[in-house]
Amino acid sequence: MPEEGLLSQFKRFIVGKPIPSHLAHHERLSRVTGLAVLSSDPLSSVAYATEEILRVLILAGAGALSIASPIAFIIAAILAVVVFSYRQTIYAYPSGGGAYIVAKDNIGETSALVAAASLLIDYVLTVAVSIAAGVAAITSAFPQWHVNRVELTLAFVVVLMLGNLRGIRESGQIFAAPTYFFVVSILLLIAVGIWRVATGTVSPVTAVAPVASTGATLGLFLLLTAFSNGCTAMTGVEAVSNGVPAFKPPESKNAAATMLMMVVLAITMFLGITLLAHVYHIVPSEQETVVSQLARGVFGSRGFAYYAVQAGTMLILVLAANTAYADFPRLASILARDRYLPRQFMNQGDRLAFSNGIVGLSVLAAVLLIAFGGDTHALIPLYMIGVFVSFTLSQAGMVIHWRRLRGPGWRTSAFINGLGALVTGIVLLVVATTKTLEGAWIILLLIPLNVLFFRMTRKHYDGVAAQLSIKGWKSPGPRRNTVIVPIGGIYRSVVEALDYAKTLSPDVRAIYVNIDAASTEQVKKEWERWGEGVPLVVLESPYRSLMEPLLEYVGQVSGEHPEDYVTIVLPEFVPARWWHHLFHNQRALLIKGALLFKPNTVVTSVPFHLQH
Amino acid sequence: MPEEGLLSQFKRFIVGKPIPSHLAHHERLSRVTGLAVLSSDPLSSVAYATEEILRVLILAGAGALSIASPIAFIIAAILAVVVFSYRQTIYAYPSGGGAYIVAKDNIGETSALVAAASLLIDYVLTVAVSIAAGVAAITSAFPQWHVNRVELTLAFVVVLMLGNLRGIRESGQIFAAPTYFFVVSILLLIAVGIWRVATGTVSPVTAVAPVASTGATLGLFLLLTAFSNGCTAMTGVEAVSNGVPAFKPPESKNAAATMLMMVVLAITMFLGITLLAHVYHIVPSEQETVVSQLARGVFGSRGFAYYAVQAGTMLILVLAANTAYADFPRLASILARDRYLPRQFMNQGDRLAFSNGIVGLSVLAAVLLIAFGGDTHALIPLYMIGVFVSFTLSQAGMVIHWRRLRGPGWRTSAFINGLGALVTGIVLLVVATTKTLEGAWIILLLIPLNVLFFRMTRKHYDGVAAQLSIKGWKSPGPRRNTVIVPIGGIYRSVVEALDYAKTLSPDVRAIYVNIDAASTEQVKKEWERWGEGVPLVVLESPYRSLMEPLLEYVGQVSGEHPEDYVTIVLPEFVPARWWHHLFHNQRALLIKGALLFKPNTVVTSVPFHLQH
Repeated sequence: MPEEGLLSQFKRFIVGKPIPSHLAHHERLSRVTGLAVLSSDPLSSVAYATEEILRVLILAGAGALSIASPIAFIIAAILAVVVFSYRQTIYAYPSGGGAYIVAKDNIGETSALVAAASLLIDYVLTVAVSIAAGVAAITSAFPQWHVNRVELTLAFVVVLMLGNLRGIRESGQIFAAPTYFFVVSILLLIAVGIWRVATGTVSPVTAVAPVASTGATLGLFLLLTAFSNGCTAMTGVEAVSNGVPAFKPPESKNAAATMLMMVVLAITMFLGITLLAHVYHIVPSEQETVVSQLARGVFGSRGFAYYAVQAGTMLILVLAANTAYADFPRLASILARDRYLPRQFMNQGDRLAFSNGIVGLSVLAAVLLIAFGGDTHALIPLYMIGVFVSFTLSQAGMVIHWRRLRGPGWRTSAFINGLGALVTGIVLLVVATTKTLEGAWIILLLIPLNVLFFRMTRKHYDGVAAQLSIKGWKSPGPRRNTVIVPIGGIYRSVVEALDYAKTLSPDVRAIYVNIDAASTEQVKKEWERWGEGVPLVVLESPYRSLMEPLLEYVGQVSGEHPEDYVTIVLPEFVPARWWHHLFHNQRALLIKGALLFKPNTVVTSVPFHLQH
Repeated sequence: MPEEGLLSQFKRFIVGKPIPSHLAHHERLSRVTGLAVLSSDPLSSVAYATEEILRVLILAGAGALSIASPIAFIIAAILAVVVFSYRQTIYAYPSGGGAYIVAKDNIGETSALVAAASLLIDYVLTVAVSIAAGVAAITSAFPQWHVNRVELTLAFVVVLMLGNLRGIRESGQIFAAPTYFFVVSILLLIAVGIWRVATGTVSPVTAVAPVASTGATLGLFLLLTAFSNGCTAMTGVEAVSNGVPAFKPPESKNAAATMLMMVVLAITMFLGITLLAHVYHIVPSEQETVVSQLARGVFGSRGFAYYAVQAGTMLILVLAANTAYADFPRLASILARDRYLPRQFMNQGDRLAFSNGIVGLSVLAAVLLIAFGGDTHALIPLYMIGVFVSFTLSQAGMVIHWRRLRGPGWRTSAFINGLGALVTGIVLLVVATTKTLEGAWIILLLIPLNVLFFRMTRKHYDGVAAQLSIKGWKSPGPRRNTVIVPIGGIYRSVVEALDYAKTLSPDVRAIYVNIDAASTEQVKKEWERWGEGVPLVVLESPYRSLMEPLLEYVGQVSGEHPEDYVTIVLPEFVPARWWHHLFHNQRALLIKGALLFKPNTVVTSVPFHLQH
């Protein structure tokens, strides 16, 4: 192995040593670890879903906040429908049925690409929203950090990026602890909260900097907007159905059971938080999350239990963001394999991680977090479109799947998925209607743009493949090679380049551009001794340009025998220290650039290594 | 000539078409045009010199402002001494005697480099200070633009940079109008001001946002600081003596006469403004220049005459900045010719302008303007050190010059220059003492750092020249060339690269890295038909890396015969559109980078042109 450069050493330090192929392995998940690994995204949504409903209702005054509970029940019912619908995908696609694959198998290319675009956008927003909400949990507990929330979110993005570049194992142990810690702390919060209701010791929470009412009327639009916002509780439910092959056998059965546990927990926590928020008269605040206010109210003060809830919330949200770090590069790699994305996304790095996908996801999430000031609430309108487009396409694809197979009981299966598609489709329409002006237009624009890019990429690769194919092609047979060596004087580097050029072809010519008559005479004189028998051609240059006469001469030579090769051999200084490049013109690069598009023309640099 | 790229077309649009060498010409200057072209810098200093004195004195209260007049008289006297000293340089160096040349001829390398460093810094500050003062003239007239002064200064830098990249001619006509317009408007201001004093119609000016007194005592340090500040009036006086060959014959005589006119005008304007500022009770303000306040007081209101003074001030200051755009690249090119700066500064661009020097100067000036908030007053402490170091070295060099030549009357000449050196040396000490803590330490640090860089550059080039010299060297004689073609499959591009490789050497080997056994079998099978008779070598790769086995193999081949060449031939896609690069790995670049430092190893790309 050659000596490593500085950059490469730095990379090793940051991401670790390469891992050989045969060490690649996948730990299979039990139901308990599966819930932890694949459910952090949907479970974590309960940290902000209630708040997003309340933030809309408060516009119509504090009295409107009580509508949150019925809305939450409707959302819980839809969530149950969606989960039952996805349970069927688990059995139908035991090798993992993401929306892209289901749509591709059953509907068609365009739907598959729309689903893929939606999912990629969805993953970016999962990172942005989860991190923003996780940081909100921190700044609720430590209000003095509120002003630094953008920096905090970016710090999390960097940590996740580096961790994933090193290749975090999807280890059950690592994921289980924070997930169950969160679940237990929220269930405890709800239990204590209910106990206080029962014992009549509830005291209302006073919000710091509450969101002001705008005096809006509680019309249909406001209600639908509140409903749309609450549907964030559903984001991520598809994760289990995508990850079926990661389970221990019987895979599908374990996955389905895990999904059931997940939905029961999600609904319990979501309804619990929403109902208690009503009981404790919680008003959404600019600086403190609803969960934080609730924990403050239920536990009476900012004590150990309060900080446990905040820490648990923060941890599960970071885990949720981390699942997107597994999903985005994996989908990007599938798309690259299908030639819809540049092939750079296809390769696993030497740590078995899809480095380009990881870096790409981090950059996009960071851009969103900066643009939207690290504010969960501002990001939510963008989040929902992608999620529900992929939900709808995936369920609709399943309906077609059942109709095509017509296996036993296919009508029931098609009905369940059809109901799922209908319900998620309606939610999608509601979200699009209520959220477009709030920022969802960006996503409605980005999805078709992404699809266009996928198609263009595919077209390009198909074109390249056709041009590279040897089918029906005949190699043109032996050709000659004229070697041209441009020289700027008689130096060792030049003589060595001539030396090298002479190994390439019997037809070598040295070119000197005449800018100053005296120097030209000097070169001609020295040529006899040092020219190595190569003929010297002197070109004139009225504009003092060294390039143009040279390019003209090359054009002339290759014009005489267009089928033959012309090779330009240049001496190129390789300085001993990188910053010594500063001292040398990049003429070789310029010549290379100028001749890049000329057919049958090759530019070669012969390195001349400076010692100091 | 080959087709122009997009970048090159853009450059043409911005800087214009190339100009052939034989069209290079220099218009010779008369005394009248010479004054305009070479004196904008010293004449324009009067726009801020008085203000810089007053800004220091005000710290000791409004009563201290009257000390400005005696200080101005002392400065005027020193200015006269310096000019007489420089008149001798004009006669001694009719080909132009800048501080670098005079110090190099007469004192030694180190002094010359210190002078060069000071001058380069001086030119950067001339641009920054002049533009800042010019913008202050504008914002005095239009106070609503005061908040945008940094943006305004940057806009001027961009305009000057683009103008000079196009190659502004030092045309007498262009320069004469604003210079004389400024001189006439200031003289008119002084005349009307005096007339008002004579007729007893002076009314004191009220400053907007006056600079507050800090209640400091009017001690020696404050006086010396005020004096240092006022010495800005002297900046740029050397320009005429640097530009002697630009005059019509008799060059030296015309230059000397021009210098005399210049100093008379400068002293008249400087004293006139300073005395009138006293009479009109002008207190320096944060938002309006002293000249603007004076013009307001003298002309009674913001009428036509007032705006004429402001416009004239702004125009001459921009011209002053522009002179640095001629001087900096010229000095940089002289230093590059002497191998003290990278050779990129030596070349005139195709518009006969020294492009790298112009861009470098603009970037440095812009950095200063941003760092110091576009504030003249903040930049002044940095300005003076460089100016007076070069003054002192230049005069001291002239003393040695006369002592060495010992021509008729050499003692008088030596005395005059000696007096100049003494006076400017004392000013330098005063400036260094009073200004170091205010920011001049940056310059006191930068001058030796620059000198160090000059010396390192020289050492590098001398080392390169020694390594390139053919003296006493013998070319090692004929060598063999083993050609290696790494392949990733059987494609047209690969077959064409093999085709090309076969023209280079009888010893060609194709390399395939085995990552996947099935693909390797396929390649081996197809090789019989498409291998062009070249032997195929299959390498193993436990880490899925394509690079490492290849590099190892290359090391092995070159290890067998270290004196012989190894050439790696790679097919390289040339996409039809630049953004298609996105779709292809830059593997050729990686291999090139990895093998750059290996002796006798050449990496060649054979372009494969994609059609779409």
